[in-house]
Amino acid sequence: MIPRYARPEMAAIWSPENRYRIWFEIEALAAEGMARVGAIPEEAARTIREKGAPKLAAINADDIARIDAIERETRHDVIAFLTWLAEAIGPDSRFVHQGMTSSDVLDTCLSVQLTQAADLLLADIDAVLAALKARALEHKYTLTIGRSHGIHAEPTTFGLKLAGHYAEFARNRERLLAARAEIAVAAISGAVGTFAHLHPSVEEYVADKLGLRPEPVSTQVIPRDRHAAFFATLGVIASGIERLATEVRHLQRSEVREAEEFFHPGQKGSSAMPHKRNPVLSENLTGLARIVRAAVVPALEDVALWHERDISHSSVERMIGPDATVTLDFALMRLAGMMEKLVVYPDRMLANLESLGGVVHSGEVLLALTKAGILREDAYRIVQGCAMATWTRLGTPEGKSFKENLQADPDVARMVQPAELEAAMDPKLHLCMVDRIFVRVFG
Amino acid sequence: MIPRYARPEMAAIWSPENRYRIWFEIEALAAEGMARVGAIPEEAARTIREKGAPKLAAINADDIARIDAIERETRHDVIAFLTWLAEAIGPDSRFVHQGMTSSDVLDTCLSVQLTQAADLLLADIDAVLAALKARALEHKYTLTIGRSHGIHAEPTTFGLKLAGHYAEFARNRERLLAARAEIAVAAISGAVGTFAHLHPSVEEYVADKLGLRPEPVSTQVIPRDRHAAFFATLGVIASGIERLATEVRHLQRSEVREAEEFFHPGQKGSSAMPHKRNPVLSENLTGLARIVRAAVVPALEDVALWHERDISHSSVERMIGPDATVTLDFALMRLAGMMEKLVVYPDRMLANLESLGGVVHSGEVLLALTKAGILREDAYRIVQGCAMATWTRLGTPEGKSFKENLQADPDVARMVQPAELEAAMDPKLHLCMVDRIFVRVFG
Amino acid sequence: MIPRYARPEMAAIWSPENRYRIWFEIEALAAEGMARVGAIPEEAARTIREKGAPKLAAINADDIARIDAIERETRHDVIAFLTWLAEAIGPDSRFVHQGMTSSDVLDTCLSVQLTQAADLLLADIDAVLAALKARALEHKYTLTIGRSHGIHAEPTTFGLKLAGHYAEFARNRERLLAARAEIAVAAISGAVGTFAHLHPSVEEYVADKLGLRPEPVSTQVIPRDRHAAFFATLGVIASGIERLATEVRHLQRSEVREAEEFFHPGQKGSSAMPHKRNPVLSENLTGLARIVRAAVVPALEDVALWHERDISHSSVERMIGPDATVTLDFALMRLAGMMEKLVVYPDRMLANLESLGGVVHSGEVLLALTKAGILREDAYRIVQGCAMATWTRLGTPEGKSFKENLQADPDVARMVQPAELEAAMDPKLHLCMVDRIFVRVFG
Amino acid sequence: MIPRYARPEMAAIWSPENRYRIWFEIEALAAEGMARVGAIPEEAARTIREKGAPKLAAINADDIARIDAIERETRHDVIAFLTWLAEAIGPDSRFVHQGMTSSDVLDTCLSVQLTQAADLLLADIDAVLAALKARALEHKYTLTIGRSHGIHAEPTTFGLKLAGHYAEFARNRERLLAARAEIAVAAISGAVGTFAHLHPSVEEYVADKLGLRPEPVSTQVIPRDRHAAFFATLGVIASGIERLATEVRHLQRSEVREAEEFFHPGQKGSSAMPHKRNPVLSENLTGLARIVRAAVVPALEDVALWHERDISHSSVERMIGPDATVTLDFALMRLAGMMEKLVVYPDRMLANLESLGGVVHSGEVLLALTKAGILREDAYRIVQGCAMATWTRLGTPEGKSFKENLQADPDVARMVQPAELEAAMDPKLHLCMVDRIFVRVFG
Repeated sequence: MIPRYARPEMAAIWSPENRYRIWFEIEALAAEGMARVGAIPEEAARTIREKGAPKLAAINADDIARIDAIERETRHDVIAFLTWLAEAIGPDSRFVHQGMTSSDVLDTCLSVQLTQAADLLLADIDAVLAALKARALEHKYTLTIGRSHGIHAEPTTFGLKLAGHYAEFARNRERLLAARAEIAVAAISGAVGTFAHLHPSVEEYVADKLGLRPEPVSTQVIPRDRHAAFFATLGVIASGIERLATEVRHLQRSEVREAEEFFHPGQKGSSAMPHKRNPVLSENLTGLARIVRAAVVPALEDVALWHERDISHSSVERMIGPDATVTLDFALMRLAGMMEKLVVYPDRMLANLESLGGVVHSGEVLLALTKAGILREDAYRIVQGCAMATWTRLGTPEGKSFKENLQADPDVARMVQPAELEAAMDPKLHLCMVDRIFVRVFG
Repeated sequence: MIPRYARPEMAAIWSPENRYRIWFEIEALAAEGMARVGAIPEEAARTIREKGAPKLAAINADDIARIDAIERETRHDVIAFLTWLAEAIGPDSRFVHQGMTSSDVLDTCLSVQLTQAADLLLADIDAVLAALKARALEHKYTLTIGRSHGIHAEPTTFGLKLAGHYAEFARNRERLLAARAEIAVAAISGAVGTFAHLHPSVEEYVADKLGLRPEPVSTQVIPRDRHAAFFATLGVIASGIERLATEVRHLQRSEVREAEEFFHPGQKGSSAMPHKRNPVLSENLTGLARIVRAAVVPALEDVALWHERDISHSSVERMIGPDATVTLDFALMRLAGMMEKLVVYPDRMLANLESLGGVVHSGEVLLALTKAGILREDAYRIVQGCAMATWTRLGTPEGKSFKENLQADPDVARMVQPAELEAAMDPKLHLCMVDRIFVRVFG
Repeated sequence: MIPRYARPEMAAIWSPENRYRIWFEIEALAAEGMARVGAIPEEAARTIREKGAPKLAAINADDIARIDAIERETRHDVIAFLTWLAEAIGPDSRFVHQGMTSSDVLDTCLSVQLTQAADLLLADIDAVLAALKARALEHKYTLTIGRSHGIHAEPTTFGLKLAGHYAEFARNRERLLAARAEIAVAAISGAVGTFAHLHPSVEEYVADKLGLRPEPVSTQVIPRDRHAAFFATLGVIASGIERLATEVRHLQRSEVREAEEFFHPGQKGSSAMPHKRNPVLSENLTGLARIVRAAVVPALEDVALWHERDISHSSVERMIGPDATVTLDFALMRLAGMMEKLVVYPDRMLANLESLGGVVHSGEVLLALTKAGILREDAYRIVQGCAMATWTRLGTPEGKSFKENLQADPDVARMVQPAELEAAMDPKLHLCMVDRIFVRVFG
Repeated sequence: MIPRYARPEMAAIWSPENRYRIWFEIEALAAEGMARVGAIPEEAARTIREKGAPKLAAINADDIARIDAIERETRHDVIAFLTWLAEAIGPDSRFVHQGMTSSDVLDTCLSVQLTQAADLLLADIDAVLAALKARALEHKYTLTIGRSHGIHAEPTTFGLKLAGHYAEFARNRERLLAARAEIAVAAISGAVGTFAHLHPSVEEYVADKLGLRPEPVSTQVIPRDRHAAFFATLGVIASGIERLATEVRHLQRSEVREAEEFFHPGQKGSSAMPHKRNPVLSENLTGLARIVRAAVVPALEDVALWHERDISHSSVERMIGPDATVTLDFALMRLAGMMEKLVVYPDRMLANLESLGGVVHSGEVLLALTKAGILREDAYRIVQGCAMATWTRLGTPEGKSFKENLQADPDVARMVQPAELEAAMDPKLHLCMVDRIFVRVFG
């Protein structure tokens, strides 16, 4: 996470202020839960909240420096926080954290932070979906050439392309919801998860108040398969960003010029070449996708903690927690903005579609020949031959269009009507099911 | 996928025979679907199935060699298959594959293979769950020391440890079901997914008959975010295997000896050291987990195909498809067998639990001191001091037990009753919620 | 490793036959080495070689099945081999493997296999280098547009592009040599590497005869950082393949058409679209690069073996050893062939270079204006304005060339001579240092 | 990179101040180089340095904010810097950056930063090597049990263990030197690397002054295979850290207790369990290794830039550049300190060695039996049987030592002298080659 690629909303989730507030909330709730089962006095639970809440509400840089100083001595972050908190709470602080282990606080806090992050990411995806839907509807019937292997294949519409990306991000939304559920769990189960020192109802109370579910069986920690599944999902979403970014980069390349990122007044594309207008947003998104994905392998490596827990996951999560969520949040919002403002050139789309002399209709022509009674193998040979003849001499004086070449073939001339050939080469043919597909995607 | 780590059931899914049978089924169903909308004669669809089905039922090595030979010429695998198939079907073969593109066959086939694989993997996980449940119930109250950081923490039970792994594999089962749904889709949508040459009802018919759902909007291919999500899930499951395997490796190490893989009569642990009995299964599982996880990154890299598709994903999937599923299947079944036969040593568990002079009860003692009115900070210092004194002189002549050291402390002597101290050091204390946790996990 | 992407030469390295021959060679050499220090009778060493060598020379499928059968009982591969070998050697077999541990054989064998593989890969890279050099020299002065961000930047030559890839593969060759040296080590040091049961001179003798160096200090195994460095290097090379393959894919895309993979007579690009000629080789190489790279992470995860060794690396290496080397070998040879036969279209290169109305000369024009005394900031604004005006109206009736737009600017008209402008827009200007760069690269 | 895991020395390399100073140095040197070939006036080059140098020496937060503000308008970082710099330099600023492209500055700067980072890392490794060497010499003859598969194998010495890690870090040092050389290159070659606008001698001059070599052929950028090789090397080094950290974690676990991280006075191991002394440093190092390794895959993915360059690598490097180097620097220094202060318990080592009733001598006993004339297969069976009998009844009343069990075997009794058996079970036997290995490692 670096400021250049961070939005304040998401970065704030990972601030010490937010973390300590969540820690306090967990401790305060746990105290209330303990009071409910008579483990500590109700009075104490009330004092903890009443004295602690304003302290945390007003937590500032000095407080954080103080906690850091205590940690340098104790070499334990939760103990440092509790010591600082005790100063505010007074004698009743002895009822704080009773029977709990640090992981109860740390892991439940991480769950809260990750659900907060997931909620922002869900909103981001909604922004991407909205942009994609608007542009898809706008270009529902904008003809463009479909490409496989980077080679012109058959016509499609720009709206259909965007509908495909919309559907992918709709799937990503579902995946993110599932990933959020994975990590929306609390554990307040004590040293090695046996509840030997506190009643499970405390965990249930805390979880409920925080909008989480209790972890059915924790070791000392919430098992890391949950987090691995979460970060793996972020990696899948990032890859979807990369796919759409790659599409835009392709559309903007000089020879294609079918779409272009919005170029701001005052923007400079290159220090050396003033003519440059580069797809820097989509290129940037390609790189950011790699960064988000980089969290997947360490998250998977974190799963196999030793016995009831080791702490190797901690340093990993201190970095990939912010890095992956902040970067993905930034990337999704950048993507949404980029797609909203994308400048689309339907004329260039049509020009490109028509630039290969009509060979892009070879598939439909093949069907027409087959229907006219030519054996498929023969039809393939004829169509391939005419297409290659067209292609090879494209733009040369002796070049002929695909239709001309076909009509010069004796078998075609004999068995296929010119009108049938004409019909097979009408790009509008490829629009016939666009409505139906849009209903599938957008309902 | 290598024979050493492959079970025949899973390997068969990736055989050419199975692939060609699925390809034929897709083509035959597509022909039926087309006949239903009048795109081709019903008679033709019937002929295709009647002549093709026995051919495929009896497909043998010669047939496969013949298809390979055609592919060497055409450099196109689906065309090679269709050419071979045409020989069996005769003139009506011209109605086969009409308006379809190779990806319709290839991608729908991959979906079928991956769902077949997922079904085997689900059964494997069930076997793991069954083994874990049986052993968890068997050792529900078998006391053992819980360890965090590899250091004795507090008592737990071996059944609780296994219940944790059971819960993780139950989550893995849910994830695999979701992953199966991700890739259980068919696409029969033609060149760039526009249905220009065939009606969407064909796709719906084929999907339905194959137990799949239609892909709402395909490009030329089924979008690869689905496959990425699938392989990422396999990576999460593999990491769960690694966690349990790591636990067994730890339990078997010479200084721990709390459990041991079954050692077969006739088995040799080392060529040089006849005394060796090594946890080779769990070590092997650790390595296999790395292999399954190795599929995750390439699967993520496959998502960003160019435009309506490029074929870079194909070579990747030809390898990770079999590798990840076959290896994971093998690993899960090896894990199930290993856990079923695991030799458990409750006596050693108890001996280890007691080997540190009682310091593992420091947490409960701390609570007892706090309850007796000693300030938490003071209590912590006393308990830590007594524990360290015990630990440091462990096994030496001047060594004293934790209890003895505590009782020698004037504050403890003054404020805590011997019976209270005794009670705080009873391992059974840690069994109090085992029933409740088991209900959470096993219902 | 799958046959589709395997060359027999490389696959043979990983065959059981080759492995067992290397195992025997290690055992026979070790026996000779022991005889030299008097640890076993010279006679025995001679018998071992004389009886074993012909057996191994003629090793066949039956032998391998026999060894497999013994392994099923002993569950130990090296003991199985030794038992089989003992049948051939007779009583002197008791001098085989004396004081050695299985890892001595397995790890030294892996070193031999990896150096054999490295030698093939070095030859492969030489083939790539030869193809790149030949084509680079052929197109040394073939003008083409250089592109950054996918956008036309300034002219360069196709030869220069290829020279860049040549230089990268020359670096890859150096890296592979270093990686080969990493794993060209032998260890014959016994159970935990202490030489307690055999003299270090045995290791030195075996290493020397096999063209390896002795591992200075082994644990039980050759440390896996060596192998990690080896596979990481393969990953870097694979990424270089991906870069060149991506270039070819771009050059072949329909709007660019500057180069094309050789299309075989009889080849079919698409079952549905007979006009297709797809860059399937370079797309395939892109996927194969992902597969080779997939070995890097597991190889890194193999480094941290427990204590003097655990066997988790073994299953990983059984798979990534063949997979990464066979796939990379296949990919490099495919790349060499593809580049040799690449069809290049200089006319299209020139046409593309000129297709943007001359804006690609904006950099040199900027310098010309600056030299003519216009402030850099002002010059940038003028040149950017004229370039954008050209670009935006490209191909429209009101479109003007970059030169025309520049000449219409009053400052330019006043301060820059037409001849200077003309000179700044001569593509040949970009050829001035081509010779010098070629000397840097090719000597 | 987060402050928690960052040392100021390394973090400073990635500060804006250091970056801008390097940028200026590159521009100033390039101007001097241009003046030398007469491309710009010598006077101008002098002015640039004289006016710019003090400005950069005193660069402060206000300056950085000003540059940021310009960048927000131009959306181009290098142009923003040059604009700010021009304010200081005045009219001669038009000679700055002439004929150069931003990448010339950015990539050469990155090379400088990475070499600075590499130099710190080399010093870190030297610290690790020094600590390992000192402790290895200290414990050269400290007997300890060697373990394979986590199971006692044969005796070795703790010094030998450390010597193995020393040798690995010595290899890592060599690798890092090679990796440093990979990225110690400068490119000042203009828009697409053709030197069309500036003479190669400028690049040579700048490179020489910065202690770099000129990139023989750049595109627009320094090719990213160099950076991939660099980060891959960091990944290998990180894995070596993980191996040593894993060893310490194992040695400290409660059942082993052979070594322990230094535990500071005032340190608290657990909030709930005062008795805990956890190997938190080595666990932390395990996690940090995962983070450093996470840079490898994105760095490999950066290699295949499009054509002469795309900018997808930039965002990746802005994050992994600092993250990987800062984290690795921190980890290496933490490792060095941890090993320096590691508390070693030779008594526990000996006690563990002897804890299995002598079965760890089974290898030498096997040799003794074979030498005494018992067939290897028979000897193996006898030794295995006696070892298993010992092992199984370890610590039980009917338990016997390995020697007792062996002596009870009739064949052993008949054919092996008690003194021979005794000799075979002397741990000192395993010290015989320690000197020789130390000479190999430390010279």
